Amino acid sequence: MSATPAGRRPGRPSGTSDTKERILTAARELFARNGFANTSIRAVAADAGVDAALVHHYHGTKQQLFAAAIALPIDPMLVLGPLRETPVEELGHALPELLLPLWDSQAGTGLVAAVRTMLTGTEVPLARSFFRDIVVAELAGRIDDPAGCGVLRAEFVASQLMGIVVARYIIGLEPIASLPPEKIVAMIAPTLQRYLTGELPDPLVP
Amino acid sequence: MSATPAGRRPGRPSGTSDTKERILTAARELFARNGFANTSIRAVAADAGVDAALVHHYHGTKQQLFAAAIALPIDPMLVLGPLRETPVEELGHALPELLLPLWDSQAGTGLVAAVRTMLTGTEVPLARSFFRDIVVAELAGRIDDPAGCGVLRAEFVASQLMGIVVARYIIGLEPIASLPPEKIVAMIAPTLQRYLTGELPDPLVP
Repeated sequence: MSATPAGRRPGRPSGTSDTKERILTAARELFARNGFANTSIRAVAADAGVDAALVHHYHGTKQQLFAAAIALPIDPMLVLGPLRETPVEELGHALPELLLPLWDSQAGTGLVAAVRTMLTGTEVPLARSFFRDIVVAELAGRIDDPAGCGVLRAEFVASQLMGIVVARYIIGLEPIASLPPEKIVAMIAPTLQRYLTGELPDPLVP
Repeated sequence: MSATPAGRRPGRPSGTSDTKERILTAARELFARNGFANTSIRAVAADAGVDAALVHHYHGTKQQLFAAAIALPIDPMLVLGPLRETPVEELGHALPELLLPLWDSQAGTGLVAAVRTMLTGTEVPLARSFFRDIVVAELAGRIDDPAGCGVLRAEFVASQLMGIVVARYIIGLEPIASLPPEKIVAMIAPTLQRYLTGELPDPLVP
């Protein structure tokens, strides 16, 4: 459900929080250096000097480990998973409709901090990996038309969404900051849909 | 031309760089506390214990002082000024066409640092004032149709532009990061134009 690990089982050795932290440190370093896709749970475990099963026990899936490593308040797959069932023709609306209430509910807690962290110098490789290997990878294959344009389309979608995060939550620009989510959705949905499936302007056709 | 002040005139008292720095510190505090619009050069001068003429001498216009206070690499009026002559129906294209090459030329130098600074906790009120009192104020009156929607339209424009800054310069998402500027312009111009002058979706009509 969340990026926090499962509770400690009875009979586990002590030193739990040290070990969990050591795993997160190893994960952060490896994700930053090699990207999400090229980092295995096994490599993180080896780097932290623990068993791979223990990494899973504390941090769940690789996505959940990544989310914890960058202090993201939720597992990104909780968002991206359900959208797999949504037809691409509806994603322009479905994507912000799912994200805005989620972001709103977390705006006070982890979201702003996580985004700030990701935009700060040392964490930028993690942010890049997050977008490239998780967000873009999840979307790009479904909108790769004409062939080779999927990644670009996904990144423009990400750019508009990030702009909303910055305007609404980081800077707190009024009235965007206190607009009901459905108004934001209504305004940006056509933008996202065009980026996802619209005809590409001439200079961008491969 | 730039946010750096004019050279020191012969015969000026010494302690120049101290004084300049003291003025910037006062400006930063007052802009952050009261916003750009409600901060006068005279108030900054009083706070710094100098004459208003000296503030102008070192830092030019209030916009230039603001740009220097937030370490913005250029005077925002250099960008916003020329666009006053552009018909609103062409701004969706003209705006990014002017901004992208400028940002590209400064990406290595001040831009990324300035944006990071503005998104950091303590500088957020300055960022807010920059958008609200300079960018939005400049645009909103020209696109206030239906009446009362100009600010909102301008902020959505700002959101897409900020998203490009984050994706291209801060995170460095490929391929967006190395796309020729005209391709970015071609992709986002219709978005910006719709935010500027397009029909508003139902939930947003006042």
